[in-house]
Amino acid sequence: MAQRTHACADLSEHQQGEKVVLKGWVQKRRDLGGLIFVDVRDRSGIVQVVFGDEAKEALAVAEKIRNEYVVEIEGKVVLRDESQINPNIKSGKIEVIASAINIINEAKTPPFAIDDKGEISEDIRLKYRYLDLRRPAMFNTFKLRSDITRSIRNFLQNEGFLEVETPILTKSTPEGARDYLVPSRVHEGEFYALPQSPQLFKQLLMVSGFEKYFQIARCFRDEDLRADRQPEFTQVDIETSFLTMDEIIEMNERLIQTVMKETKGVDVQLPFQRMSYKEAMDRYGSDKPDVRFGLELVGLSEIVRNSSFKVFAQAVESGGEVKAINVKGNADKYSRKDIDALTEFVKIYGAKGLAWLKVTEEGLNGPIAKFFEGETAENLMKATNAENGDLLLFVADRSDVVAASLGALRNKLGKELELIDESVYAFLWVTDWPLLEYDEEAGRYTAAHHPFTRPFEEDIDKMETNPAEVRAQAYDIVLNGYELGGGSLRIYERDLQEKMFKLLGFSQEEAQEQFGFLLEAFEYGVPPHGGLAFGLDRFVMLLAGRTNLRDTIAFPKTATASCLLTSAPSEVSEAQLQELSLAVTKKKEN
Amino acid sequence: MAQRTHACADLSEHQQGEKVVLKGWVQKRRDLGGLIFVDVRDRSGIVQVVFGDEAKEALAVAEKIRNEYVVEIEGKVVLRDESQINPNIKSGKIEVIASAINIINEAKTPPFAIDDKGEISEDIRLKYRYLDLRRPAMFNTFKLRSDITRSIRNFLQNEGFLEVETPILTKSTPEGARDYLVPSRVHEGEFYALPQSPQLFKQLLMVSGFEKYFQIARCFRDEDLRADRQPEFTQVDIETSFLTMDEIIEMNERLIQTVMKETKGVDVQLPFQRMSYKEAMDRYGSDKPDVRFGLELVGLSEIVRNSSFKVFAQAVESGGEVKAINVKGNADKYSRKDIDALTEFVKIYGAKGLAWLKVTEEGLNGPIAKFFEGETAENLMKATNAENGDLLLFVADRSDVVAASLGALRNKLGKELELIDESVYAFLWVTDWPLLEYDEEAGRYTAAHHPFTRPFEEDIDKMETNPAEVRAQAYDIVLNGYELGGGSLRIYERDLQEKMFKLLGFSQEEAQEQFGFLLEAFEYGVPPHGGLAFGLDRFVMLLAGRTNLRDTIAFPKTATASCLLTSAPSEVSEAQLQELSLAVTKKKEN
Repeated sequence: MAQRTHACADLSEHQQGEKVVLKGWVQKRRDLGGLIFVDVRDRSGIVQVVFGDEAKEALAVAEKIRNEYVVEIEGKVVLRDESQINPNIKSGKIEVIASAINIINEAKTPPFAIDDKGEISEDIRLKYRYLDLRRPAMFNTFKLRSDITRSIRNFLQNEGFLEVETPILTKSTPEGARDYLVPSRVHEGEFYALPQSPQLFKQLLMVSGFEKYFQIARCFRDEDLRADRQPEFTQVDIETSFLTMDEIIEMNERLIQTVMKETKGVDVQLPFQRMSYKEAMDRYGSDKPDVRFGLELVGLSEIVRNSSFKVFAQAVESGGEVKAINVKGNADKYSRKDIDALTEFVKIYGAKGLAWLKVTEEGLNGPIAKFFEGETAENLMKATNAENGDLLLFVADRSDVVAASLGALRNKLGKELELIDESVYAFLWVTDWPLLEYDEEAGRYTAAHHPFTRPFEEDIDKMETNPAEVRAQAYDIVLNGYELGGGSLRIYERDLQEKMFKLLGFSQEEAQEQFGFLLEAFEYGVPPHGGLAFGLDRFVMLLAGRTNLRDTIAFPKTATASCLLTSAPSEVSEAQLQELSLAVTKKKEN
Repeated sequence: MAQRTHACADLSEHQQGEKVVLKGWVQKRRDLGGLIFVDVRDRSGIVQVVFGDEAKEALAVAEKIRNEYVVEIEGKVVLRDESQINPNIKSGKIEVIASAINIINEAKTPPFAIDDKGEISEDIRLKYRYLDLRRPAMFNTFKLRSDITRSIRNFLQNEGFLEVETPILTKSTPEGARDYLVPSRVHEGEFYALPQSPQLFKQLLMVSGFEKYFQIARCFRDEDLRADRQPEFTQVDIETSFLTMDEIIEMNERLIQTVMKETKGVDVQLPFQRMSYKEAMDRYGSDKPDVRFGLELVGLSEIVRNSSFKVFAQAVESGGEVKAINVKGNADKYSRKDIDALTEFVKIYGAKGLAWLKVTEEGLNGPIAKFFEGETAENLMKATNAENGDLLLFVADRSDVVAASLGALRNKLGKELELIDESVYAFLWVTDWPLLEYDEEAGRYTAAHHPFTRPFEEDIDKMETNPAEVRAQAYDIVLNGYELGGGSLRIYERDLQEKMFKLLGFSQEEAQEQFGFLLEAFEYGVPPHGGLAFGLDRFVMLLAGRTNLRDTIAFPKTATASCLLTSAPSEVSEAQLQELSLAVTKKKEN
């Protein structure tokens, strides 16, 4: 048969009367006896093809076809009767009267229907990924992913960025997450590591004077997987020289604005909102707050410090705090039982309980109302902006527990009260992060971001005297409550970098052993530099309106890092192991 | 200091009188006593900055700066005197009179000068790669590489291709080259493999109905390295459905035409020349001939079959052949000693010797001239188009030895006689490859391309009766004697694929074990499909006019697959090995 003339869904009244050749899959066949209707699908969508007496040979073949057969069809485009128009498909105003058909390939009945209806178990979807990807919603997600990367690349290349590929086979660096290792055959007993990010290489490219680098880079972490983690993931990796934090942020805002416009047709306003880490934790109990709705956390420690309600007073006295969320106008909506359920919810985050008050015309109401009277009640109501009909929910605990539990509760309430406008893309920069975190277990500080993050110039003096207070010139970009990416200015002075390694507990030998080549590079004229990395998989997920990262990765792994399609990982031959000078010490029990 | 206003080399007479801020590296400093000239370099190039008495403070700082210091400079652009114009740099008509300078970072004296002059040992370049990459020729290569990938991506996305990422952690498939393995921590004793190419995944995406896929994909082969091999390399990977071989070739020609125009400003004419594998071997002794020059091989077996020169006659009699190259008009240029050297050269390729004749006014001349008289001499001269002053060089041997030795000799002579127009980009398709190769050692056929390559439809019948004769619907693209890429139509019928596996000596169990998921996918409606992959590193190398693949890779490995910069691969801790349930059985001796 001749070359394909059209994609199925591109046919419309404009092709009326034209002879066309289609190639695609059988979506559905209805046999009305002497008249067969076939929905033919390709990646563009669907068109209806009619087989009738005019082409008996074709009709005979059409009788044999089944769902998912691959076919090529020749026919003529005709308008449908008004009554037959199908508004649900793009080509719904026309149909094709077939004159010929070839079966290119047959198909067994697939294990699930190739459409976007119905829930399919994810294990089945992953095992038959090639069929799962036939479903229109999946194809559209990967089309969007391709469009997003195109938009990102063109923006950055127009800005003068060079895309540079950095190695996948590289050196193991124990700091950070666990590395995937690759045994070397030539160098017996030695290993490469797969990169957790191109961090060191992109900094070296700045040492090289490349000035503007980017890469859409595969990264690897051998961590225990959660729903939103994959052993390999993709990041949009960016690094620049000679720019300030504000300049880097501004450039990335224009990047995001361009992507949103080109791929979603959405106008986002610049500049994005900015908030310090401290403010985000104070107001939202989260370092990646969803700012599409209120329900902010209100600090009440000063008001309840001397309260007769001992739970509150003691929390404050022992260095913790008391905070509340005012669930505006929803006092009636939450029964005692409902609140019990919320109490169980906050316990997941370590809270010992959830105190509550309802505001009625008569004043505060609830089991702890008796502790709050007179001026304390007034101050409480004023601070939480409480009015008749409001529900106040309190957690009193260590600061981190208060933040985690009320932050999570806030997100839960936002969703169940439908306070979130899902059509909004709320981008937010979170800035002024702490440089260091104290690791109780290890009894030392660790890098909150990574060991190359630059402290605030005015905080450098505190690195030795008061490390916990040192702020980092770091910034995270948050979208609708998800961390989309993050970055920082970097240390570019060898002595400051050595000081940082020392703070992190590296001996001079260890620092030399692991980062010696970077420290050496730092002696040859390093420009001030900084950058950012976006999680591409998550960005695609959010723009595609999906909730599962695996839906944005063509061939993802399961929670145990297996590929159900290819059965990777798998055993290898003894000969392969011998070549690598390796022995397996323990085998998986099957 | 303020924001950078200009890149160094962007300054010209247009900025005359303007105040500018530059940021970059000190390329060179000349102290003329009270007057200091500094060449400042950034990635754009160089500009000359002058420090004098007008700005004493700046002059004092300028006295302290050394090569490769990072500086920021404020100054005013002034025209140079006519006599001072430097035509070798873009900004050569102007200079900047400095009013202020800050030293941003100091630098030790680098181990080599940051310019494109002089030969530097490659080991030193790789150890200090971050300095090597500062050299303008290196930066320009990576700029070109970034431009090439941009051009490729935009062309393909405009054609409706989706860029899809396929896994790096995947399944080991023993066919082909040796895999790099990655031990699994979760699945003890099991391994992932790094992909040698995304071949199986791109075919699965065709099963998914994606129709047009591409990826600029990292691939891995654990082979003993030659000068033009790297353990990881990048290919432009393309796959399409429903297209014929001609359509795929035509699309790729337009892709190459676009890249050549956009990145090199070169117009290449379409269609490219095409040649069968057989013709390429016959005429050039190579499956990737450089067609920029002649010196073609001439078959003489029939003419010399009954020659009294036994070496020739016996070669033909025992099933081999005799071929010659006519080195037109160069008889005088090659002395007996020169020809002895050429003889040593062809021996590298297995030839037992190199016979020769010179054509003089008196006829054939040389030690074997006596064997060629009368009609034989006439036929010989006619076949080789020999004239007075020509040199004829002969090899008589097995066909493969004749091809290899004369093919290599042809390339050598083409270069040393300067027959090659280096400004020409000669693209060539080599088609009609054999499907199978007989592996003497294994006593079985192996796939010449890979096991998914589609035979010519009319040759399918011969797969069992005469496998060596079966041609593949495969095509290689050759540029100036280098294989740039290759591809094929694929088998899309399960029974034909099984037949192919059987031919390759796979038992049904082995085929199932290794490719079961592909065979299963082949039951669910597979479209006809085919594709191609370009070696990006080599493409960049040829367009950048370089001769070493490592110059196109930012952080390459040495011939022993080591990274001299980071010292990868390296030993890992016992704890890391334990987590992976592995033991090292043999350690590298240091």
